[in-house]
Amino acid sequence: MPKRSAKSFNIAVVGATGLVGQEFLRLISLRQFPFKGLRLLASHRSAGKHLIVGEREEVVAEATPHSFEDIDLAFFSASSEVSRELVPHAVKAGAVVIDDSKAFRLEPECALVVPEVNAADLALHKGITAIPNCEVTPLVMTLWPLHKVNPIRRVIVDTYQAVSGTGASAIQELTQQTQAVLDGNKVSPHVYPHQIAFNVFPHVEPFLGSGYTREEINVIGETRKIMHAPELKMSVTCARVPVFVGHSLAVHVEFSKPFPVDDVQSVLHDAPGLVLHDEPSVNLYPMPLTAAGRDEVFVGRIREDLSEPNGVALWIAGDNLRKGAALNAIQIAEELIARKLV
Amino acid sequence: MPKRSAKSFNIAVVGATGLVGQEFLRLISLRQFPFKGLRLLASHRSAGKHLIVGEREEVVAEATPHSFEDIDLAFFSASSEVSRELVPHAVKAGAVVIDDSKAFRLEPECALVVPEVNAADLALHKGITAIPNCEVTPLVMTLWPLHKVNPIRRVIVDTYQAVSGTGASAIQELTQQTQAVLDGNKVSPHVYPHQIAFNVFPHVEPFLGSGYTREEINVIGETRKIMHAPELKMSVTCARVPVFVGHSLAVHVEFSKPFPVDDVQSVLHDAPGLVLHDEPSVNLYPMPLTAAGRDEVFVGRIREDLSEPNGVALWIAGDNLRKGAALNAIQIAEELIARKLV
Repeated sequence: MPKRSAKSFNIAVVGATGLVGQEFLRLISLRQFPFKGLRLLASHRSAGKHLIVGEREEVVAEATPHSFEDIDLAFFSASSEVSRELVPHAVKAGAVVIDDSKAFRLEPECALVVPEVNAADLALHKGITAIPNCEVTPLVMTLWPLHKVNPIRRVIVDTYQAVSGTGASAIQELTQQTQAVLDGNKVSPHVYPHQIAFNVFPHVEPFLGSGYTREEINVIGETRKIMHAPELKMSVTCARVPVFVGHSLAVHVEFSKPFPVDDVQSVLHDAPGLVLHDEPSVNLYPMPLTAAGRDEVFVGRIREDLSEPNGVALWIAGDNLRKGAALNAIQIAEELIARKLV
Repeated sequence: MPKRSAKSFNIAVVGATGLVGQEFLRLISLRQFPFKGLRLLASHRSAGKHLIVGEREEVVAEATPHSFEDIDLAFFSASSEVSRELVPHAVKAGAVVIDDSKAFRLEPECALVVPEVNAADLALHKGITAIPNCEVTPLVMTLWPLHKVNPIRRVIVDTYQAVSGTGASAIQELTQQTQAVLDGNKVSPHVYPHQIAFNVFPHVEPFLGSGYTREEINVIGETRKIMHAPELKMSVTCARVPVFVGHSLAVHVEFSKPFPVDDVQSVLHDAPGLVLHDEPSVNLYPMPLTAAGRDEVFVGRIREDLSEPNGVALWIAGDNLRKGAALNAIQIAEELIARKLV
């Protein structure tokens, strides 16, 4: 729901030509976000491009340390390197930053927020707010309302992540590789280390020394931070699947005490931003295909975990570009405005 | 390894024109399986088809209750309905049956066998042996050698299953749908309830009243039976992904006591039928694409489970048509011969 305000804001979008930047620009028009000035920023390579935003045509400028004068809200969806370099300049110029990169998420002075879960944390921001990893948002939206009722002890998550999480180049790679395989031609991977067409690999973001990927470790750290649950035990495997848009998660949750399936369904039915797709008898369960293009996060396959008396298993799907990224950022902006924090 | 025998056998293949039947016929030639007579059987619709097996051309006959005279070994890879109808006739005619269907797997008088794990169970067969579900075979091949060293208490498994598990029609459906999506055309699912191209769904085999699918419940029952671990605690989600051949599994194992990653790797390195693909620094981990067409099961991403002191997480991939089906059946036949049980 758009939150109207008498005030109108100058906003900057760094990474305006990227997948998430584009989704952000579509959504601020759709939601009638109260902006007056709109500064579209990107790398030197994309500077000069024309983009249509609502009924306005805008020209993309190169993002530099001097791009943020008079900006109230700066949305960053570029690389972590770009955020690390330019976010401090935006903050210094007086903007409140909403960052989609991994650069600041786990830093104590950064408010990492999913408004349905921890909007109150926005009050603590020191200029930088961040949105979580695109699979963490649907996860915490599902876990949080349950955790409030019956504290969670342990969560096991295995992901099925779409290529759009990587960016437009990965969408192109999946498209081209898929056609090549269908035509019987050889595939040469560029964006990913291996062919993604008709394949799966348990490798999202670089490997750390521990045998875990940075993505897996971040899922744990970000979930704990957003839910204020620093002791939450988690095990995560992140895998890439040949899907364009929509991340899915198989989740096994252990609560403090038994949690009947009907009660879990009832809590999730009433939780903000979630839609239950949980009617196996009519083949209704969350899928990336039905989640893509939707604001809501979908939850289903809710059932007793047969291996643990206090356990529940479930399945989540959400649009990684929308609620997983651009929409969450806009909702943070709306909350900042509503709370007069910008 | 083919096990040679002075004796030679008459074998029947029910479902000879199916994906697994075809793989079976390729493999008995490759492995120089000691057969003299070969009776290819299928439904009325496929009767009369000519198939090349090694250097022989064979004609497919219709499978009927009278098809099994003089047959020593009957391999069934058709539907559970066909197995339920015809297996008793094959047994009555004196054949030892190796069944790839779900019809008898969990029945006490059926020996459910993965030779690397429980070949000794073949001694108990009363005419019917069965191979497990195609994702159970790689799972038990990985769990069993670890369980022998450090008993397993709980296993959580989420699968990424290829469409060839469903059959040739599903391969055709994935191919056609994928091309349709790339061409911007509408997709109408036939084999599956939803589009599988560029999609994922947590639905393999029909749903039971409990919210679980039959597949998920069978994974638990079959794993317990093969490993002689009736109390093993398991939680499973089975999902279908747009991959032609090769099932992947994300696995989280809880042992009786801590199990250092090096020791787990060492045990799995020495385990029969397994290959370690566990070098993240060079992007080496199991994938369906590298497992397809291979006899071995691949294991990697072996790491400490961060949520459980006695826990280990890992990732498995295997060819669901080979070791997941046809190869396992042939290995059972080879063991039956070596043990003079046929």
